[in-house]
Amino acid sequence: MAAPGGRSEPPQIPEYSCSYVVSRPVYSELAFQQQHERRLQERKTLRESLAKCCSCSRKRAFGVLKTLLPILEWLPKYRVKEWLLSDIVSGVSTGLVATLQGPFPVVSLMVGSVVLSMAPDEHFLVSSSNGTVLNTTMIDTAARDIARVLIASALTLLVGIIQLIFGGLQIGFIVRYLADPLVGGFTTAAAFQVLVSQLKIVLNVSTKNYNGVLSIIYTLVEIFQNIGDTNLADFIAGLLTIVVCMAVKELNDRFRHKIPVPIPIEVIVTIIATAISYGANLEKNYNAGIVKSIPRGFLPPALPSVSLFSEMLAASFSIAVVAYAIAVSVGKVYATKYDYTIDGNQEFIAFGISNIFSGFFSCFVATTALSRTAVQESTGGKTQVAGIISAGIVMIAILALGKLLEPLQKSVLAAVVIANLKGMFMQVCDIPRLWRQNKIDAVIWVFTCIVSIILGLDLGLLAGLVFGLLTVVLRVQFPSWNGLGSIPSTDIYKSTKNYKNIEEPQGVKILRFSSPIFYGNVDGFKKCIKSTVGFDAIRVYNKRLKALRKIQKLIKNGQLRATKNGIISDAGSTNNAFEPDEDTEDPEELDTPTKEIEIQVDWNSELPVKVNVPKVPIHSLVLDCGAISFLDVVGVRSLRVIVKEFQRIDVNVYFASLQDYVIEKLEQCGFFDDNIRKDTFFLTVHDAILYLQNQVKSQEGQDSILETITLIQDCKDTLELIETELTEEELDVQDEAMRTLAS
Amino acid sequence: MAAPGGRSEPPQIPEYSCSYVVSRPVYSELAFQQQHERRLQERKTLRESLAKCCSCSRKRAFGVLKTLLPILEWLPKYRVKEWLLSDIVSGVSTGLVATLQGPFPVVSLMVGSVVLSMAPDEHFLVSSSNGTVLNTTMIDTAARDIARVLIASALTLLVGIIQLIFGGLQIGFIVRYLADPLVGGFTTAAAFQVLVSQLKIVLNVSTKNYNGVLSIIYTLVEIFQNIGDTNLADFIAGLLTIVVCMAVKELNDRFRHKIPVPIPIEVIVTIIATAISYGANLEKNYNAGIVKSIPRGFLPPALPSVSLFSEMLAASFSIAVVAYAIAVSVGKVYATKYDYTIDGNQEFIAFGISNIFSGFFSCFVATTALSRTAVQESTGGKTQVAGIISAGIVMIAILALGKLLEPLQKSVLAAVVIANLKGMFMQVCDIPRLWRQNKIDAVIWVFTCIVSIILGLDLGLLAGLVFGLLTVVLRVQFPSWNGLGSIPSTDIYKSTKNYKNIEEPQGVKILRFSSPIFYGNVDGFKKCIKSTVGFDAIRVYNKRLKALRKIQKLIKNGQLRATKNGIISDAGSTNNAFEPDEDTEDPEELDTPTKEIEIQVDWNSELPVKVNVPKVPIHSLVLDCGAISFLDVVGVRSLRVIVKEFQRIDVNVYFASLQDYVIEKLEQCGFFDDNIRKDTFFLTVHDAILYLQNQVKSQEGQDSILETITLIQDCKDTLELIETELTEEELDVQDEAMRTLAS
Repeated sequence: MAAPGGRSEPPQIPEYSCSYVVSRPVYSELAFQQQHERRLQERKTLRESLAKCCSCSRKRAFGVLKTLLPILEWLPKYRVKEWLLSDIVSGVSTGLVATLQGPFPVVSLMVGSVVLSMAPDEHFLVSSSNGTVLNTTMIDTAARDIARVLIASALTLLVGIIQLIFGGLQIGFIVRYLADPLVGGFTTAAAFQVLVSQLKIVLNVSTKNYNGVLSIIYTLVEIFQNIGDTNLADFIAGLLTIVVCMAVKELNDRFRHKIPVPIPIEVIVTIIATAISYGANLEKNYNAGIVKSIPRGFLPPALPSVSLFSEMLAASFSIAVVAYAIAVSVGKVYATKYDYTIDGNQEFIAFGISNIFSGFFSCFVATTALSRTAVQESTGGKTQVAGIISAGIVMIAILALGKLLEPLQKSVLAAVVIANLKGMFMQVCDIPRLWRQNKIDAVIWVFTCIVSIILGLDLGLLAGLVFGLLTVVLRVQFPSWNGLGSIPSTDIYKSTKNYKNIEEPQGVKILRFSSPIFYGNVDGFKKCIKSTVGFDAIRVYNKRLKALRKIQKLIKNGQLRATKNGIISDAGSTNNAFEPDEDTEDPEELDTPTKEIEIQVDWNSELPVKVNVPKVPIHSLVLDCGAISFLDVVGVRSLRVIVKEFQRIDVNVYFASLQDYVIEKLEQCGFFDDNIRKDTFFLTVHDAILYLQNQVKSQEGQDSILETITLIQDCKDTLELIETELTEEELDVQDEAMRTLAS
Repeated sequence: MAAPGGRSEPPQIPEYSCSYVVSRPVYSELAFQQQHERRLQERKTLRESLAKCCSCSRKRAFGVLKTLLPILEWLPKYRVKEWLLSDIVSGVSTGLVATLQGPFPVVSLMVGSVVLSMAPDEHFLVSSSNGTVLNTTMIDTAARDIARVLIASALTLLVGIIQLIFGGLQIGFIVRYLADPLVGGFTTAAAFQVLVSQLKIVLNVSTKNYNGVLSIIYTLVEIFQNIGDTNLADFIAGLLTIVVCMAVKELNDRFRHKIPVPIPIEVIVTIIATAISYGANLEKNYNAGIVKSIPRGFLPPALPSVSLFSEMLAASFSIAVVAYAIAVSVGKVYATKYDYTIDGNQEFIAFGISNIFSGFFSCFVATTALSRTAVQESTGGKTQVAGIISAGIVMIAILALGKLLEPLQKSVLAAVVIANLKGMFMQVCDIPRLWRQNKIDAVIWVFTCIVSIILGLDLGLLAGLVFGLLTVVLRVQFPSWNGLGSIPSTDIYKSTKNYKNIEEPQGVKILRFSSPIFYGNVDGFKKCIKSTVGFDAIRVYNKRLKALRKIQKLIKNGQLRATKNGIISDAGSTNNAFEPDEDTEDPEELDTPTKEIEIQVDWNSELPVKVNVPKVPIHSLVLDCGAISFLDVVGVRSLRVIVKEFQRIDVNVYFASLQDYVIEKLEQCGFFDDNIRKDTFFLTVHDAILYLQNQVKSQEGQDSILETITLIQDCKDTLELIETELTEEELDVQDEAMRTLAS
């Protein structure tokens, strides 16, 4: 069920720099709390309704209403005596934390960057004429802020719509693609982006509002170009804040177990800084940048400007996914603890409806902050009542405390944010560990980080996502493979390269290819086979054809005689009439029609012609297919071609350890025919080897047909047929497809 | 080596509709022939130089020059007597075929669509004032054609640059991603696009030149809207041409083996149509659209306008890849036949340099046509001399025959193209077969086709490519998995679902998961485990914790006594003092600190509290990891968490059939510790089962510790510790990553 929860007090968006520190997390927190509680309640409802379902058919209509508005379910049952105190304590604590301490949230930053790029300061320049002598251009902050709120609420609406669609399409699984290394790289890039944006405020240096590709780099460059304009009062205040905050946080961390509560250094610093700024009148005396005015009150509901949607589509997509991913991952912590499950798609729908609703009340995109959720849970919050109370506290803070904070230097707020970035930047230390553990994961981290800095967070996330998926394809495409042999006197087959004393069965090669065979790696698979067997089956076949043609020519010319017992050279074994074979590719040679006779030759003995036919030292190739988890049509066809290529040079291909559904797939794709039969399939490699050893033994008793050279005259044009068939139609499956393009 | 070949006669681009039929394939053909010959020559050079390498150190400088300009190598050695006749015959044949018969090439179409979109007719409207009464707007064809030639040559240059970069970056492998189904869908979409473009000409109906998304649909709609404007003379000529061409082609095909050469129906139709059009003066009498003027002569070298590059980047990318893929796949046919190898990256470099060079001579993007390559090869072409001769024939045709073709109706040319599309459209018949064989491949086909029609060929190809890769990810992500059991009295383990009479060992579950475990499917893997074992390890643990707390409470209240021999209830077994456990989630219950005592309970016997703890009917889980071809860091960590989750509910996890490098990866990622030891790894599933059966036997002799309920008082806060650790830190690896976003 996807009720939008009690998002009933739509507060406006405060001034930009402030939004990081005070306001945004509150609503997301609230949203999460409500969801969490709702979930608990829904489960209770479900169980109770199951217990009563026999007797309450008349109450069903009311049940549906309750599912839509869970408050109808839990509020009447609220155990005032047991729960109210906990809820109040929890609500007040959470509210205070939310007001006073605000770790930076990624979603704020992402929304901020969209707002800044679509409504930069430059759009709101007006000539100032407020009594001063200089007629400088000023920024119309009122108009700017209205425009920005409009953009943010339109963005919220669009994010909501996207989330609702995602939920409807059941693609909650998309979050699974945000792997650790990707998230690590992405958040570090986000921290870097925040650092630059806050650095500008700490130094009180004005820059243009860049957006799009490389904007963060341009901003950084401009900050350093204008570093001479630094306002010393702001800089010193900021620097002091950073140093003090980081030092105290370090102490908090070190003496975690010895002090009852961490020192709320941000609050202390903010109060002191406000007092100093007010006392010393830093704005007038040192031209310091102060917060000045925090707008109060709430905006009335309004229709967000739908016309902005097309401009913010890409960013909304990223924000929708990131906001959702954060919330679900936090939710899962508590789902695990309290033993309920989260339906990913349902959450998408719930967030979607929340955000669509919020979009009309000038709200901000909702997500979740772990730290404050933890506060509510650990201080004993029981129901949404705690959420409502904490929202009330924040509302009071916005209405009352805002005025008091007006003399505060902006650089102090920025410095507080910077001091909280340390943890994010410390993620860089993960890279060496990742590199040691898995190079590809390290590359994903670095790639996502760099690309998010260069392209911006939205495009960067998308690029990182696609890159991550590509690495999966590459890992599947370039698998490990091994030639195998048996550990002596066992049925265990291991890599001949990595193990000592591995026995390779006589005349047999065993290949294990650890990956599905699909269109992306059929070539690689062929190379592995070539490298394992030590020769190229096509080349061997072509060389044999060539030698055959020469022999036929010699027979025709009477220089050789083909008898039942072999080929007899009339001129002795050192026949000078043979033209020297320099292995040149004389095309005419190959074009000579050679249909007249077919002979059988023992290719491993010395030939009467000097054609360099590669020796084939094996009679069988066993493919261990235990790790082939799927095959596509290209894969099946290549496998078929490979078997045929080996069959025509008298090497049999056997398959071992295939899974049942892979064999089914082979059948569906027409893999089997008269030459490729199912009796080449074995349950294990050892079964195949035992069978082959048996075969060899039974053949040794007979006269080996391979050692006789026989003349067969009855099927005249087989040779020519085979050649055409294989070079034009079967040899390369992929190329065949390509050639349709060229026809 | 990447010599640009002898592309020395830069011809200009003829009029649009003509370019499909007559001119383009010639240059590609030439380029391919030259490459093919160059390859043969290079191999010869290599071998010869190897043989002479001892004696020719002084000749090395000249050797390098020869490698750069292969003609220096082969021309002096040209065997005039043997080769010249073949080359002339082959060259003339190829030249005639290239001139007279031109199946549509995909690359022409792709270039055409870029040219049309960047220089549509509307850009060249001028008020006509050439003596007529009506002051209508006319198209300035001269200016238009000059602009189009400029665009095409800039495109050629850019394609060349991209190909050169691809070759330099060694990404020839990209062609492997163009799978059969993708190529099938793409070429069918291309054929559809050609059909629509030619339909317009056959009907002689004018439409706007749409470009971008859905342009082909808009064009089609506009053709039908304006179908009343059809020129009957053109339509009838076109229709007749289509019918005659298709009928004769069908006959050619059916009597392939009975007639010496296929009837060149295109040539015959063209000649007859030209004669009729000239004789009946169709242009004047019926306002038919005729070819009118074929520009003659060649353009001087010129710098392509680099400023156009940014507009054509996406299209160039597609064209570069497609052109290359076509050429390489055709080349491979002959590489296989004549036993040489093609270096994909080298080909990229060669094509790149060719196209860069051509770009300065107003040339068209080069690729290869299989049909004419086959003609040259089968008519006995030996060297590039044949290529030069065939190019000469085409040049003569352009210079001389062009004039003669001027009265030809455009609709006849268009109809010839349409008649040749049949084969492309017949590819649709592949879909049912693909669907039967492999549903995913069928979906790729249909997706690529639809998307290429909707988005256009360049974006469509890209979308199809990405979609194809995503299907690979999805196939890896959602693998098949099975609970296994043994075939009685064998060491063979098969799926319990698909086989009858499978024995599952007592108290053991065996799971085979046929895929790598990576960030995309860790959740799926967990679900498979849950479904195989029949319970949720986390839920079991939480329920046990809850029951433990209740027991502790009862012990504290004196209602239960914990002794060495078990828990003794003071109020008898039907104790009414127990509060009924309705399985509600009372958070307070869970928050009660329960550090005081720890007890050990036999979870499979009846509990003294009414907590519904799921039964765990197994003591071991064996994972058959034979098909796990890789693991990433997320995968390793999840595996670790899974083992820990099972260990804390007294189920041991064993691993079987792991490949060596996967075990190495586990080691690198810190998988092993005191609780997860390597002695849980077995070579095969059967080994693991034998070990487990042995273990059970040896335990049965002893007093089972599971049957006693013992009170242990000495390690007081273990419970609390375990809980925190597992819910907060270890339970879900992915969520942990996500939570960094929320902190």
